[in-house]
Amino acid sequence: MRRIVFVLVAVVALAGVVVYMAPASGQADGEAAPIFGVKIPPGYRDWRLISVAREEVDLDDIRAILGNDVAIKAYREGTRPFPDGTIIARIAWAYLPSAENNKAFGKVQSFVAGRPKNGVQFMVKDSRKYASTGGWGYSQFDDGKPLTDQAMLQSCFACHQPVKDRDFVFTRYAP
Amino acid sequence: MRRIVFVLVAVVALAGVVVYMAPASGQADGEAAPIFGVKIPPGYRDWRLISVAREEVDLDDIRAILGNDVAIKAYREGTRPFPDGTIIARIAWAYLPSAENNKAFGKVQSFVAGRPKNGVQFMVKDSRKYASTGGWGYSQFDDGKPLTDQAMLQSCFACHQPVKDRDFVFTRYAP
Repeated sequence: MRRIVFVLVAVVALAGVVVYMAPASGQADGEAAPIFGVKIPPGYRDWRLISVAREEVDLDDIRAILGNDVAIKAYREGTRPFPDGTIIARIAWAYLPSAENNKAFGKVQSFVAGRPKNGVQFMVKDSRKYASTGGWGYSQFDDGKPLTDQAMLQSCFACHQPVKDRDFVFTRYAP
Repeated sequence: MRRIVFVLVAVVALAGVVVYMAPASGQADGEAAPIFGVKIPPGYRDWRLISVAREEVDLDDIRAILGNDVAIKAYREGTRPFPDGTIIARIAWAYLPSAENNKAFGKVQSFVAGRPKNGVQFMVKDSRKYASTGGWGYSQFDDGKPLTDQAMLQSCFACHQPVKDRDFVFTRYAP
């Protein structure tokens, strides 16, 4: 018992260190999103790039999908379902025309990333913990604060159903 | 002398390993681009993300700008001019509507990255070697082959002149 307590204290202490270091490379705080209990993974802004995308209409952003080491390895090796420990991050920014770039190109054609927009989203793979939602926990953080609309979070799984045969992940790796 | 040969063989062997491993994480071969002599930096596809952009008209792509460790550190700390050793990579893909995503969103709004397109470009900082072009060497590789159009490469520096006050770099870091 004493040993278990020691291990727990050590784990909590380490977790504290990780959270403390995080702000240098991406938003992070200790608050967990409801339902799935996902927290912002420290250092996610340093993760490698899976792909990019553009959403028009209401979202009106340009976005990047990043993966932790487990995710990148699984993508490159074609491992499906994704192994436990996989985390996929979606970051996004305002979609802004660039007068500066247009001038350099001599054509009106260029759009760049502006301020962060539409929060940060994470899919976390834990096949046992999230067994009832295809093995994935979902979360969104706006300015570091977790989305608390439980109906919205519950809808993530339903929305990802059409790509069940790709382990519920929409984004393909961009080589 | 024998020792020097041994070291050279070891270096060449290691270089071979690097080149051999490179395709897993980005195109790479030994050919250098003309004028600036830039080669494809091994492992650039693993570099961290600086920002993303979209180019319409002829280029018609969606792109990501990645930086090596020196570049990312300089961006985050606001170091200008960028230190020697900075390398900035521009990768790009075809800009494709995603029927799959549109269906999930319930709106026609989604564009994703398709096949690699418009080659891979690198800006390499070496303030002495490239003193005559603002400290930067420029290169482009299409399917791993360097662009050999010398006039086109020469034009890179002229085109980057408008952002001389940002050390000739157009892309801003996307937080």
